[in-house]
Parts: sequence; structure tokens; C-alpha cells
Amino acid sequence: MKKKIAILPGDGIGREIASGAASALEAVGKRFGHEFELEYANIGGAAIDSDGTPLPDSTLALAKSSDAILLGAVGGPKWDSLPSAERPERGLLAIRKELGLFANLRPIPSFQKLVQSSPLKPEIAGNVNMLIVRELTGGLYFGKPSERRGENNDVVVDTLLYTREEIERIVVKAFEFAKSRDGRLTSVDKANVLESSRMWREIVNEKAADYPEVTVDHMYVDAAAMKLISSPGQFDVIVTENLFGDILSDEASMITGSLGMLPSASLSESGLGLYEPVHGSAPDIAGQNKANPLAMILSTALMLKYSLHLREEGEAIERAVQSVLNDGFCTPDLQMEGSTIVGTDQMIKLVTERI
Amino acid sequence: MKKKIAILPGDGIGREIASGAASALEAVGKRFGHEFELEYANIGGAAIDSDGTPLPDSTLALAKSSDAILLGAVGGPKWDSLPSAERPERGLLAIRKELGLFANLRPIPSFQKLVQSSPLKPEIAGNVNMLIVRELTGGLYFGKPSERRGENNDVVVDTLLYTREEIERIVVKAFEFAKSRDGRLTSVDKANVLESSRMWREIVNEKAADYPEVTVDHMYVDAAAMKLISSPGQFDVIVTENLFGDILSDEASMITGSLGMLPSASLSESGLGLYEPVHGSAPDIAGQNKANPLAMILSTALMLKYSLHLREEGEAIERAVQSVLNDGFCTPDLQMEGSTIVGTDQMIKLVTERI
Ligand SMILES: CC(C)[C@H](C(=O)O)[C@@H](O)C(=O)O
Ligand SMILES: CC(C)[C@H](C(=O)O)[C@@H](O)C(=O)O
Repeated sequence: MKKKIAILPGDGIGREIASGAASALEAVGKRFGHEFELEYANIGGAAIDSDGTPLPDSTLALAKSSDAILLGAVGGPKWDSLPSAERPERGLLAIRKELGLFANLRPIPSFQKLVQSSPLKPEIAGNVNMLIVRELTGGLYFGKPSERRGENNDVVVDTLLYTREEIERIVVKAFEFAKSRDGRLTSVDKANVLESSRMWREIVNEKAADYPEVTVDHMYVDAAAMKLISSPGQFDVIVTENLFGDILSDEASMITGSLGMLPSASLSESGLGLYEPVHGSAPDIAGQNKANPLAMILSTALMLKYSLHLREEGEAIERAVQSVLNDGFCTPDLQMEGSTIVGTDQMIKLVTERI
Repeated sequence: MKKKIAILPGDGIGREIASGAASALEAVGKRFGHEFELEYANIGGAAIDSDGTPLPDSTLALAKSSDAILLGAVGGPKWDSLPSAERPERGLLAIRKELGLFANLRPIPSFQKLVQSSPLKPEIAGNVNMLIVRELTGGLYFGKPSERRGENNDVVVDTLLYTREEIERIVVKAFEFAKSRDGRLTSVDKANVLESSRMWREIVNEKAADYPEVTVDHMYVDAAAMKLISSPGQFDVIVTENLFGDILSDEASMITGSLGMLPSASLSESGLGLYEPVHGSAPDIAGQNKANPLAMILSTALMLKYSLHLREEGEAIERAVQSVLNDGFCTPDLQMEGSTIVGTDQMIKLVTERI
């Protein structure tokens, strides 16, 4: 099987970890007899420097013509003083919107070896296996008007806007995942305050009729922020709108004990998907061979499973990562007792060998 | 000194815990020679039952004519099937708006005796002393339009609206608190996405010039949701808009190990304030002498300090609560090793005796 993969390393540690994705794909290709054609393009700060815009047309064109997209991370102090409409993050928001990447998936597992580095007690952090499904192209992030008003510009407005269709497709996606997992779906909203949440809740209840095998409950976002800490083990699949999902998925990412281990997927209706680690570009450690490439490598595994339908291949990567951890290797960001600390390059090599 | 206090017990355990507030005030009155005139009125579900509306005019009039207001909790399954515009929570939202209670204060301390019941590791939970200042009468909670649109009502919109003045007054309030505490203010926003957050950030930076003794930093709401778990000890005062504050303050409330211990204050520009526990109406244990009255009693202490300027009196209550905990007494919701579990009545008596 031959597939074209767009790799957008981005900024900071992006380039270093992207090389982990490339190595993992090479190893998978060899072992399973696939050919992955990798093409690189800039996004974020790197694209501002090269093309004067965080999402150049050429990058977008490459992404559209690929079978899947891997992204490193964007942003850094170099571009922090730019007006917000021109900043690296805009590249991320724009590619999501342009490609219709409406479904952001964030699996949050417990890594037994890392339980000690969670801020939560081990008995709470050790038993987690949830998937957060975040709507990614609607809500307050894109609603218009988003502007200053009034004679002196002394009123400011942002708009939380959803169409029924936008809510339906993400809710259906979440039901499908719940069905293939433990059959439990928690829909998070603020229906005691927001009209958009009331419509969201209605749609969840409507769609529930099509999934009798899935148990649904509704939770207010403030209660969910509590439960994610006090009993994260209770969740299977969580579905929520864009901004709530941004906050809750980052909160939940702390449970595992390391941001450096968490992949994410953003899917469109066509099946085209963008895969990226949850962590940022970490400019403070860029170029020092200290970055943890595992979230990027695990994002590559998700890509194989979700966009290329190569389940076995994806699982081979996941097992390789698990085996490296079990053998006591880790990067400096992970606090594993009695472990051997290795650099980015070495970690990539260790995983690749095991694929 | 003679003061009129409105007590709005509300629903569920509201009535039981309100009696804790009344007893504490009686004890303070005796010891310090003040007269507190307590007047009771309904709000929430109780008011729906008695008056057909969650905030009767008579309740509002009483609140307006009082020196301060104590509220128990609202809501319960009995009223859950009402349309949301008529539900108990509407009483809460309406009284906030009607009285202009724009500043919600949530102190989050560590209780040494309770550190074990936090989901966080003791070394993380044990060192917390933050104050969350949440804007309470603006943003998505009250912005218009908040409606369905389009031919088939298939578009839904909520509006995040702030005026410069609304942002300024809450920011100034937060700076004042930071100045009187450890001098550190963290402003939380989503300025990489929202125009309202960019205006918020500008105003914080403007006001910072008036408070050279306060160190200010800005944090995105998703990062704040992480830091509240991974290093809650880093925060002194946090200031943020209404919805972010709702989510983050509930998340932070888990740190202490018990919702049953947390008071809150909601202040207006005139100084009139409403004081209530952070926990809800807990209908499942209502009337069983199991509710923890300490959050209500500590809310009464906040009232004495913030609205009646009786600092010593408020501290006398806080010391009494601390002493009861130190002597090993607790209600069933608290998990304290080797403690004596007592009911609501007995807990109220224990605290009152010590005032
Ligand atoms: C960079 C930012 C705009 C982005 C978001 O809020 O969506 C990030 O926090 C994320 O979650 O991918
Ligand atoms: C009941 C609800 C409307 C309310 C809010 O969101 O403000 C509650 O969660 C709170 O924080 O007091």
C-alpha cells in the first residue's frame, strides 16, 4: 500500500519530534510492506518566517492532497509580539477550519509506569481510560460577530454559534466511538445557562435513540471539571463543544502524569485527518535533544489506525512504545523511578527498533 | 451594632445548614455585643412552590433592604423537568444580576486535617492558599442574543458580551485583593482566540500600572486548568471572566478534599454581598442530619469580614471551625482518619460553643 503523508513540523521541538514520526513510519513500512511518501511543509512560526503567513497556500494544498497529516507543534516567543491575527496559532485554527477537521479526539489512558508522576494519587490516576471528543470547528472559536463596538469601542462581543448539523455530526461521531468502546457516553454542556447547550442536549437525546447499546448521561461543565479530578476512572467517552473541550481535555491531560505521552487526532467528514501531540512547541528545550518524541510517535499510530485503517500497524507502534517504557527508558520530562534517561534521538531509535 | 441579615435557605439541605449560620451569628452577637436581625425568605425551588417563581419580588425586596444576604443552596429533582427559564437556578442568576453582584470570591485554602481526602497527592494539595475572583454578571451568562435562528431554528447562538466598565471593576477588585495578600495576580483568558479576552488582557495591563506592588501574569484558560492540578500552590489571586471562573473555581474546589468546607462571597459595588457555600443542595441527604454545615458557617464568617467589616468576629468563627476539626470531629462527607463523625446539629453545636 502506498500513502502520501504531509509532515508539518512547525516550531520549537516540532522538527525533532517529527523525525520520530518519520522513523516510525519507515519501520512500519519495512515490517508490513507499505510505502509512505513523506512530504514536508511549514506551518506556524516557521511559515511566518518563510512565507509571511502561518498557513501558506502551498501547505494547505499539500495537506489537501495527502492521505493524512502529521503536525509537530506551533508557536514560540519569537512571534509573541505579533498581532493575534498573524500569530502561529492562527495557522492551526486555519488548517482545522479549511480542512473541516471537526472532530478532535484525545485518548487519555493510564500509563502504569508513569502513574507516580501524576499529581493525582496513584489509586485515582491508575485506572483511567477515557476518550475526549471535542468539537473543533465551531462555537466561540469561529462565531461572528467577534468585535469591539460602541462609540469608544468599549463593548466587546464574541459569538458562540452552532448549526444543528455541526452538533449532530460530532455527537454521532462520539456515539460511534462509545459503541466501539465501553458503551458509555458523557455529554458535557452548560444547559442551565446557555441556549446552545440546550440544543446540544436535545440533539444528544435524539441521537441516543439510534444507539440503544450506549448509556448516555449529561453533565454540566463545572461538574465535569470536578469529576475529571475526583473520579476520572468513571468516564468512557466524553463529548463536548469546542471551548469546553479545550479546557477539559487539557485538564484531563494532567491525569496521566505526562503531557509528553499524549497524542491527538482531528478528523474531517471525508476521513482526512490531522495528527499531533497534545503538548506545545517547548521553545525552551528546542534543539537540545531533550524533547519527548513519544506523543508524536503515538500520534502516528493513531493516524495509521484512524485515517489509513492500518490497525495492526498502529498497534505495533503502541506496543513498541509500551515496551520501551517497560524496559525503563524515558526522556527527561518523565519521572519514572529507577529509569534510564535518554535523549530524543536515542528514544526514537529504541522505539523504532522494537516496531 | 445592629444589622439586618436576609437568610435565604433555598432547597435540599439549605434549611439545615442555614440554621448553622443563624447559630453562629447568635454566638458572635453574644460574645461581641452585636444584634443581628435575621429575616427569612424563599428562593429557588422553595420559592417556585410558594410563589410560582424562583425569585419572588418580596425576596428581592428583603435582600435589597438588608445589610447582607446568606444563601443556602438551590435546586433539586422536583423541579428538574421545568423549562430552564423557570428552574431554581434562575433564582440565583436573577438575584446576582438584580443586585449587581459582579465579584464572586472563592477562597481555596488547604485544610491540613483534610489533605488526605484530596484526590491530589498530599505534597501538592497541602500547600494551597488561593483566591479565585470570578466576574459574575456578564459574559456568556447574560449576553444577548441567546436564541435559535433560521427557518427551522437550526442555528443557535449565545453571546459573550462585556463592557469595558464591567471588566475594569472586576479587575480592580482583583488587584485590591492581590495587594492585600501575597501581591501576585494571575489573569486567565483565551486571548489567542477571543476578542473579549484580548480586551480583558489590555485592561489588566492598563490597571497594572496603578498597582506596582502587584506582579501580574496572564495565562490561557486551558493552561490554567492544567496548572490548577499540577501546581496549585503557585497561585495567589486568580481573576477571570464568568464562565471560565465557573469551571476553574469548581475544578479548584476539589483540591481541598471537600466541597463541604468551601464558602463564597458575591459582592456588589455598593458593598452589599451575598454569601453562600460552594456546594449544592444535595437533595439525596436532605433532612437526614448528615449535611456538613461548615461551608455555610464559613460563608457567615466571610460575610462578617467583607460586608459588615467585622474582621475579628469573622476570624472568631474561622478559628472555631479550625478548632473543631483539630479536635477530630467531622461530618460524614469528610474523610478524616481517626475522627469522630457527628451530625449537622452536633457540628453546629460544637462550632457555636467555641465561638
Ligand atoms: C493554540 C490554541 C488556539 C488551541 C486551541 O485552543 O484550540 C490549543 O489550545 C489546542 O487545544 O489545540
Ligand atoms: C447554577 C449555576 C447557574 C451556577 C453558575 O454557573 O454560575 C453555579 O454553577 C455556580 O457556580 O454558582
